[in-house]
Amino acid sequence: MLRVTIWNENRHEQNDETVARIYPRGMHGAISEGLEPEGFSITLATLDQPEHGLTEELLQNTDVLIWWGHTAHDEVRDEIVERVHKRVLEGMGFIALHSAHYSKVFKKLMGTTCSLLWRVADEKERLWVVNPAHPIVQGIDRFFELEQEEMYGEVFDIPEPDELVLLSWFQGGEVFRSGCTFRRGHGKIFYFRPGHETYPTYHNANVIRIIANSVRWAAPVPDLIIPAPSYGPWPSQEPVPVQV
Amino acid sequence: MLRVTIWNENRHEQNDETVARIYPRGMHGAISEGLEPEGFSITLATLDQPEHGLTEELLQNTDVLIWWGHTAHDEVRDEIVERVHKRVLEGMGFIALHSAHYSKVFKKLMGTTCSLLWRVADEKERLWVVNPAHPIVQGIDRFFELEQEEMYGEVFDIPEPDELVLLSWFQGGEVFRSGCTFRRGHGKIFYFRPGHETYPTYHNANVIRIIANSVRWAAPVPDLIIPAPSYGPWPSQEPVPVQV
Amino acid sequence: MLRVTIWNENRHEQNDETVARIYPRGMHGAISEGLEPEGFSITLATLDQPEHGLTEELLQNTDVLIWWGHTAHDEVRDEIVERVHKRVLEGMGFIALHSAHYSKVFKKLMGTTCSLLWRVADEKERLWVVNPAHPIVQGIDRFFELEQEEMYGEVFDIPEPDELVLLSWFQGGEVFRSGCTFRRGHGKIFYFRPGHETYPTYHNANVIRIIANSVRWAAPVPDLIIPAPSYGPWPSQEPVPVQV
Amino acid sequence: MLRVTIWNENRHEQNDETVARIYPRGMHGAISEGLEPEGFSITLATLDQPEHGLTEELLQNTDVLIWWGHTAHDEVRDEIVERVHKRVLEGMGFIALHSAHYSKVFKKLMGTTCSLLWRVADEKERLWVVNPAHPIVQGIDRFFELEQEEMYGEVFDIPEPDELVLLSWFQGGEVFRSGCTFRRGHGKIFYFRPGHETYPTYHNANVIRIIANSVRWAAPVPDLIIPAPSYGPWPSQEPVPVQV
Repeated sequence: MLRVTIWNENRHEQNDETVARIYPRGMHGAISEGLEPEGFSITLATLDQPEHGLTEELLQNTDVLIWWGHTAHDEVRDEIVERVHKRVLEGMGFIALHSAHYSKVFKKLMGTTCSLLWRVADEKERLWVVNPAHPIVQGIDRFFELEQEEMYGEVFDIPEPDELVLLSWFQGGEVFRSGCTFRRGHGKIFYFRPGHETYPTYHNANVIRIIANSVRWAAPVPDLIIPAPSYGPWPSQEPVPVQV
Repeated sequence: MLRVTIWNENRHEQNDETVARIYPRGMHGAISEGLEPEGFSITLATLDQPEHGLTEELLQNTDVLIWWGHTAHDEVRDEIVERVHKRVLEGMGFIALHSAHYSKVFKKLMGTTCSLLWRVADEKERLWVVNPAHPIVQGIDRFFELEQEEMYGEVFDIPEPDELVLLSWFQGGEVFRSGCTFRRGHGKIFYFRPGHETYPTYHNANVIRIIANSVRWAAPVPDLIIPAPSYGPWPSQEPVPVQV
Repeated sequence: MLRVTIWNENRHEQNDETVARIYPRGMHGAISEGLEPEGFSITLATLDQPEHGLTEELLQNTDVLIWWGHTAHDEVRDEIVERVHKRVLEGMGFIALHSAHYSKVFKKLMGTTCSLLWRVADEKERLWVVNPAHPIVQGIDRFFELEQEEMYGEVFDIPEPDELVLLSWFQGGEVFRSGCTFRRGHGKIFYFRPGHETYPTYHNANVIRIIANSVRWAAPVPDLIIPAPSYGPWPSQEPVPVQV
Repeated sequence: MLRVTIWNENRHEQNDETVARIYPRGMHGAISEGLEPEGFSITLATLDQPEHGLTEELLQNTDVLIWWGHTAHDEVRDEIVERVHKRVLEGMGFIALHSAHYSKVFKKLMGTTCSLLWRVADEKERLWVVNPAHPIVQGIDRFFELEQEEMYGEVFDIPEPDELVLLSWFQGGEVFRSGCTFRRGHGKIFYFRPGHETYPTYHNANVIRIIANSVRWAAPVPDLIIPAPSYGPWPSQEPVPVQV
């Protein structure tokens, strides 16, 4: 059974009535409910728990970590960032949702600013599949719509993704690379754009389906032999001038 | 005229007679001499200078930064690392030589451990071109040899390169992705493997040719309009429900 | 001086008054006029010339070939397709414009169907830069608009591009990967979406600028040593059991 | 249960005693025996069968096609090549073994010459993993050796692979990209280098393990909605000037 940890900053839910009304159990709660039929073993973790809820033990027992953060990226302690980053390189899957593009972990994995354009104007987003046989879009039609979402616009300052899976069209005139995969070390990473806190995005069946698919896609491959990272001095396989 | 800064840790040259004999003016000096016919405007900078020789002013006036470090990666101050990283994202080219795979700047740009296998055994390295029309291998034949080099072996823990240009064969039985390109933000990055301090690698004409080619390849594109990074709130191009 | 050949099917211009009015000298003529300030040496070639205007001699003396075709892809003779394909692999740049996605040469280079969705409805296209430091978008702002264009929609059945440079937003609700680079053999290829025959797209300054930039980007690298393709039996560099 | 078809030219086995001795049931037979424990449903097909054994019906019922060919590439009829190519774009996995780099189908999928250097000298090949968490190398250690193999050397004239999984070191001094993945349309493609007919490569446990892994990796994703290819005229999702 896949072990999934859903991490949420969980601040808007405390401070903003609109958000609290849409997500009475938090966005992490809504995602967890959405994933229930998938048969994952799910743990919830939030910023204000000790160690942000991300103990070494939990991460060692997490196959895929889902991350939502926005207003409090800076409050995530650097040692926890290091811990998560290390686990991704060791093979833990990482699903970065929406404003997690600016999370410390995602930026550290990308090596770039991950900056973009934005606008909150209750506008329509239409997400188009561009890689139709990718397991992340299993069961998804050519496109689906979110009646109201925040706009994110290009330039999205990321490295060239390994695979581009989804593109967004926005009512106000912009486009965005909304579903992107990356591999870093042994870990697989999926960035998935939608999810502004004041809209019911994580109640949308297509959004949940894509998150579920991405969890399965990002799960570590079992029975790997080569450790991650794998390094050190190394004996020669063939004769060399200086035997070491 | 391209403005090139060659940065060298410059410690082995002070502490190791072998290195001092091979590189009486330092590895940075040897590279600088090699590049002389290219007509670049070259500045040298080393670890023990104030601000490691990498002032804000110098970086603002550097098109391409060449980096060699090994034994003192940890002594490079984090604020200088940030400064260089920021300039790469803004468009400064970055050529990481040999053990610079473990430099703070390169690891920060990659987001991975950049670990690998190694061995110093006076063995032969043969570098093969795999991308024969790439400007970085202009004037280079199918392969060239270095009679004695350190071995670097896979797994090299980097993101999938944008382009793979050179592969190494080692006498002792290993292979390595020795010439890799990456784009991060506006900046172009080339990792080039050879250059162990106890061998005369930076006196080799093919090595110098590749460094020279990579400098021209990594130089910023002039007349760009979009700043790097480019972000912020953004007005709609088309009508949206909430005018912002 | 870069030697550019502009190839146009040149049929709509003969058969359709609207097209003839917008492009009295043909689309190839309009592109040629647009490129005039660039200082290229330009040759025009069309379908109805002997050998479609693409003699072996002309191709041997062409650095970059620009291609526009639509209604008569099937009339392009297979031997000429082979000839062009071979020259691209040898290093000639290839710029595929608009409906050239379905040209025999482009499909042969891609290995896929290159299919897509389409609609002609006088709608607006807005092209966004996603790779802002790429030489192909030198001098181009974050986006530019074409008041009326044909819609092309995803899924665009191409291999994952080496680089994604431009994305289109369409008024009717679709998105498209409008500027894509590929390398095949020694040749560089740029697919550029706009250019429906009933709209004055090739009179647009941004479109012409991008075509001009792409020509410079796709030009062969001089002084290459390794022939393309490079193959055959090969003597060993090191001792092997059977000396061959 | 995965439905796998193993296609073999099956000529060397008839004409060369050495090959017949190593592969009494043909290379296809040896691969089939190796894959037996995997629980695939396996069909064998060879060049000299009617339709080369690749009927429309069989291909419609094949999830992954494994291909070995060498001396008789030209005898494969173009209509069968078209049939296989189409099925790959529709989602059938394709595993190209060794000299299948020059098969008509593989070249058509790549769009390049797929040329390379070669030598038969009974020399050692050592295959190194460069992407250690890829499912294709599940259960494979850092490297494995084949005591005698044909040498294939770079430049291998293929498009930049989506993922590079394995690199080969050859005793005679060359290197090669020996495990490469590509996506074309809905289909996943793996090129795997080893397998010269005069050596017992397909009796090697690591080679069989990699082929088995690649079959699972290349299998079509179920429950896809978007057909391949997906194209045609398309109604607008938003108001446009001309309603179509």
